Amino acid sequence: MRRVTLLTDFGTRDGFVGALKGILASGAPGATVEDVAHDLPRGDVVKASRTLARYWRRYPEGTVHLVVVDPGVGTDRRGLAMEAGGRFFVAPDNGVLTRVIRDTDGWRCVDLSSSELLPPPPSRTFHGRDLFAPAAALLASGTPLPALGKGVRDPILLREPELRRSEAWVEGEVVEVDRFGNLATNLPPELVQRVGGVEVEGISVGLRGSYGEGRPGELMVVLDSEGRVEVAARNGSAAEDLGGGVGLRVRVRNA
Amino acid sequence: MRRVTLLTDFGTRDGFVGALKGILASGAPGATVEDVAHDLPRGDVVKASRTLARYWRRYPEGTVHLVVVDPGVGTDRRGLAMEAGGRFFVAPDNGVLTRVIRDTDGWRCVDLSSSELLPPPPSRTFHGRDLFAPAAALLASGTPLPALGKGVRDPILLREPELRRSEAWVEGEVVEVDRFGNLATNLPPELVQRVGGVEVEGISVGLRGSYGEGRPGELMVVLDSEGRVEVAARNGSAAEDLGGGVGLRVRVRNA
Amino acid sequence: MRRVTLLTDFGTRDGFVGALKGILASGAPGATVEDVAHDLPRGDVVKASRTLARYWRRYPEGTVHLVVVDPGVGTDRRGLAMEAGGRFFVAPDNGVLTRVIRDTDGWRCVDLSSSELLPPPPSRTFHGRDLFAPAAALLASGTPLPALGKGVRDPILLREPELRRSEAWVEGEVVEVDRFGNLATNLPPELVQRVGGVEVEGISVGLRGSYGEGRPGELMVVLDSEGRVEVAARNGSAAEDLGGGVGLRVRVRNA
Repeated sequence: MRRVTLLTDFGTRDGFVGALKGILASGAPGATVEDVAHDLPRGDVVKASRTLARYWRRYPEGTVHLVVVDPGVGTDRRGLAMEAGGRFFVAPDNGVLTRVIRDTDGWRCVDLSSSELLPPPPSRTFHGRDLFAPAAALLASGTPLPALGKGVRDPILLREPELRRSEAWVEGEVVEVDRFGNLATNLPPELVQRVGGVEVEGISVGLRGSYGEGRPGELMVVLDSEGRVEVAARNGSAAEDLGGGVGLRVRVRNA
Repeated sequence: MRRVTLLTDFGTRDGFVGALKGILASGAPGATVEDVAHDLPRGDVVKASRTLARYWRRYPEGTVHLVVVDPGVGTDRRGLAMEAGGRFFVAPDNGVLTRVIRDTDGWRCVDLSSSELLPPPPSRTFHGRDLFAPAAALLASGTPLPALGKGVRDPILLREPELRRSEAWVEGEVVEVDRFGNLATNLPPELVQRVGGVEVEGISVGLRGSYGEGRPGELMVVLDSEGRVEVAARNGSAAEDLGGGVGLRVRVRNA
Repeated sequence: MRRVTLLTDFGTRDGFVGALKGILASGAPGATVEDVAHDLPRGDVVKASRTLARYWRRYPEGTVHLVVVDPGVGTDRRGLAMEAGGRFFVAPDNGVLTRVIRDTDGWRCVDLSSSELLPPPPSRTFHGRDLFAPAAALLASGTPLPALGKGVRDPILLREPELRRSEAWVEGEVVEVDRFGNLATNLPPELVQRVGGVEVEGISVGLRGSYGEGRPGELMVVLDSEGRVEVAARNGSAAEDLGGGVGLRVRVRNA
């Protein structure tokens, strides 16, 4: 019997998450269910994919990661179950699994709409409860992946923002803002380490070894806990100080 | 050993939920405890009853649903334990169980203040911890319902808003707003399906099969995942578009 | 196998809590993990210590309480594991354990940086995941406390605000505001009970037995569920009514 984690944009107060957990409790009574988050920005598939990237591999093999951020519910977008890196995933086919697919060597994916084990969802507005949770319960009960549907070779992938290069600069951008106002970028760590800092909105920001090395309020660049380049402010919010977030341009001087 | 679910308006940051979970962990160490929500609007018994309606029956029989939204703590309102539809409920007697009672054929209910197994609560301000959680722990440990108190035949029931009828119209109202700004109404689905839409604040709103069938931003009527009539906006918020929420009048033309 | 509770200021939506839970699931697969809160005010060690005080002893002996509110991550502040009152604690050495230490007769504490079981954290920005969660997993798996590091006799303690006394008054202050706008003070209950009330910002506030005894909206003093003196408003928010919070002066007349 396995572990199931939950990541949604449902909020908790309406009872949607309760319904989903009830389905899991009924369908996989011995599985352990753990909340990751239910307060994702509504319909924000990009954010969901980045959040998922932070934890999926920390869980032991066999864990079932259920992700329901589903702005296309009720359209003909597919529902997916996937195995990658020894973990399982259940999610709508809208790109939310992009980072998992990019970070692993191999994956297998099936289309939930073609499974005889999963009857057509009774509602067209709440597939989290009617399709994805039942699929996760089956996986958590040991049902093999191929029994959940026909193979899919072309799950939707999100485009990652690309670096822009000039003679003088490499320019990336802020790709995520966390609760602390830290700004994760898509800049290559090696380049930033060689130069020793970045420039954001015309402001030079120096590289520090950790948040604690900066002066209070000072903007700094650190390598975050995933090894990515992050702009932060000690005991403050870089997002507030810079008045910006996702999409903000960040430059490194060519040495 | 059973499962206990939690629905409160305590918020999490003060540690009230922690205290309640600690009591459950001590009193029913083998039970599985699952959060539904702790961010219900403060003291909103109507909302709590609607949220509870979304999930209680999704959980397997034997589950104990603990609901603490208790604006009357410290008054002489009773504390209840109930069995209905094979599940158990522990809650203050303030109407929060209305929908469960209305949606089941039979129920049994007892008054927690008359139980010898439950000593008088040491505090008069936190019955969630001192009365309701201990009662839930007893039920989760297999204590039979009648051991928790004397029978109650008149739990408080909330009045549901009634439909108004004219020759030309049937008028209902919005009874709940969810996180997505969808507006649940008390209109009969059959009537709306026959007519093909509703009128809200003078605006005609057509019936769609799912959120995905509407044009982006378009107001529409759908049957929600409970089969109720709901006003929604695709990838938007009907509540914001209409500038209103609970109590907003919604009309169906008589065919 | 033990139970682990989580108290952080990480928020949930970025996946930091997910990463931490994944480490626990991998390191102590049989342990039960329970959320207390992840929405503590960012870096607010005082609030965290008060929240922890509300629940740690409600859990059974052997429980591991993991607390990560860590504004000093990446500095040379120590990481601690502690045993007190039969429960275990893992937290940064920043005073967050003050109330536990003050409320128990004895405690044992070790410095996590000196343990051979815990390799140096790979990141300098996320010790919750890289240091504290692994330490909690070890404790939850039965590793004895001394194996986690060398003894520490001087954990950092927060200074509690002191009472001020004049011939006519004893003056305390508001030390915490809860979700309901109730104002917890550091006044001695015996004194308040003898006098029958307090004065806040020049307003006399009478002592009531419970919230329900006040008139709606009336300010009152009650003994809260911990036996402390609290200023509250029935079905309202004392914090809003008084336009203040932590630090607000509260006086009791000398009899």
